[in-house]
Amino acid sequence: MKTINTSELAEGIKRGDRVSLSRAITLAESARSDHQLQAQELIQELLPLTGKSKRIAITGVPGVGKSTFIESFGELLTKKGLKVAVLAIDPSSTLSGGSILGDKTRMEDLARNPNAYIRPSATGGYLGGIASRTYESMLLCEAAGFDLILIETVGVGQSEVLVNDMTDLFLFLQIPGGGDELQGIKRGIMEMSDLIFINKIDSFGVTKAKEVRVTFARSMQFLPQKDSGWKRKVVMGSGYTGEGLDEIWEKVTEYFEAIDTNGYLTKRREEQNTVRVKDYIREQLDRKAMDLYKTKSFSEAEIATRNPYFLAMEWIKENF
Amino acid sequence: MKTINTSELAEGIKRGDRVSLSRAITLAESARSDHQLQAQELIQELLPLTGKSKRIAITGVPGVGKSTFIESFGELLTKKGLKVAVLAIDPSSTLSGGSILGDKTRMEDLARNPNAYIRPSATGGYLGGIASRTYESMLLCEAAGFDLILIETVGVGQSEVLVNDMTDLFLFLQIPGGGDELQGIKRGIMEMSDLIFINKIDSFGVTKAKEVRVTFARSMQFLPQKDSGWKRKVVMGSGYTGEGLDEIWEKVTEYFEAIDTNGYLTKRREEQNTVRVKDYIREQLDRKAMDLYKTKSFSEAEIATRNPYFLAMEWIKENF
Repeated sequence: MKTINTSELAEGIKRGDRVSLSRAITLAESARSDHQLQAQELIQELLPLTGKSKRIAITGVPGVGKSTFIESFGELLTKKGLKVAVLAIDPSSTLSGGSILGDKTRMEDLARNPNAYIRPSATGGYLGGIASRTYESMLLCEAAGFDLILIETVGVGQSEVLVNDMTDLFLFLQIPGGGDELQGIKRGIMEMSDLIFINKIDSFGVTKAKEVRVTFARSMQFLPQKDSGWKRKVVMGSGYTGEGLDEIWEKVTEYFEAIDTNGYLTKRREEQNTVRVKDYIREQLDRKAMDLYKTKSFSEAEIATRNPYFLAMEWIKENF
Repeated sequence: MKTINTSELAEGIKRGDRVSLSRAITLAESARSDHQLQAQELIQELLPLTGKSKRIAITGVPGVGKSTFIESFGELLTKKGLKVAVLAIDPSSTLSGGSILGDKTRMEDLARNPNAYIRPSATGGYLGGIASRTYESMLLCEAAGFDLILIETVGVGQSEVLVNDMTDLFLFLQIPGGGDELQGIKRGIMEMSDLIFINKIDSFGVTKAKEVRVTFARSMQFLPQKDSGWKRKVVMGSGYTGEGLDEIWEKVTEYFEAIDTNGYLTKRREEQNTVRVKDYIREQLDRKAMDLYKTKSFSEAEIATRNPYFLAMEWIKENF
């Protein structure tokens, strides 16, 4: 990366220039601590312009049709004159070469739309770190004038908890059936959800669709109420045909009006900031410790024969 | 939990008593730091009895037939007079109520086998913490005389990296096809794998089976060589019919002979211990910081208006 002029980047982002936005996100994703610091100075400068978007988590297990849904939903929103950014958290990106969401061919149409911006997750690092990078990307997109930030996750558990901590609304895509192995996790994600979209109804008949709606309504009765006071809603439709997308957008709007009115949104944003402070503490402390461990560690003999837990205790006592 | 007599537990574990083993694992999984310390003292006492098992990671995406495979493979091994422990890392367990592997009805036959022991993962906490708990369970099982520790993960990326760091051999179950969304992650896991078992061949014909073998052999050509010098092997079979299980066991034995002879096993175990020391440092430091944060944090106004990154920096400077 060439020398970065952060005030130039800041000006570019304020103008809504995508190249500047992309460069800023790349800077934030850099593993170099000087880059991270520059990125944070940039974020500091843009902070007054952030926080105005609707922050929406979208998840669903592999095969549920997330890409098609997001593409159609994104097109609909841009037609309403809204600017939409799509970010993706992909826990598999820590595997060399492995990526669930990284596929470049996804959401081709939306990617070409001048009012949409699509960015896959940062690679590498532990999940907490990936979450922090996504949060930084979100702030940068907000400063660039995006009205909605859709954060997509793969629906396998861990990353949903993280993304729930940085968004205002949780939208869960489902299709009826699916493997038994995923039932437990679906239940867990259902609890976090504010809206549930039953996708691909064009692929099953009206009778089946009615059955499914009843099943979902029933299973939702047993979920604890949300802190926001909002009652979970189920919408049926199809990302492919576009059915139900207007209804989902209606519910999204209704939700934001409700939490804006009852003060929950303000509370939620405070919680998001608190989680972020804690995550940065963890991340910075971790980096500090691991940098130090490179220069001060244990002998092979100690590592081979002693309890790692007690070695760690000793090490912390000496160094922190 | 009642007062724990750790020397009694240690005696029980040395005798191979399952009740003692289960209680010790529960102690290690406790969130209370006094319990964790007691568990570590117990592990310290048992340390000379650990490290003698074959530590094997088994993974595969949901639906690949992991449970059936492990049940059949476990039965086969116990018939050979071996004692087998099955541990499971489940990243979804951090979701309240959500669990991919927690289903109690899985592996019923193996669970009743006197030479087998099945234990689902610890719930709660972040992934690093879950890995540490699994490691502790592994040591306790080794001290109780288990010859093989099979660590099962759900095959969605993050947990495979962790389990790869605490095992000697990585076995990857696959079935042909599957959703496109999972291709990237499969590639990533393939790279970590030492053995690949193509499961469910009873459900597709001989022609298809041959095709699949050729495809796999071809895709493996492009993977980087393993540090152990071992060349990845593909075995085809079925957890359901038992076909291929003897062959997989043969390859496992062959692998361990090879890495024992060339010194890689010793090196690998050292690496495992080093990773563990680092993980415990991270975990203990994290706990220390979060405990402190409860008593010393920021005002609502600061949280609402300032950059979380810089707040975290300040906090660390003041407290560490």
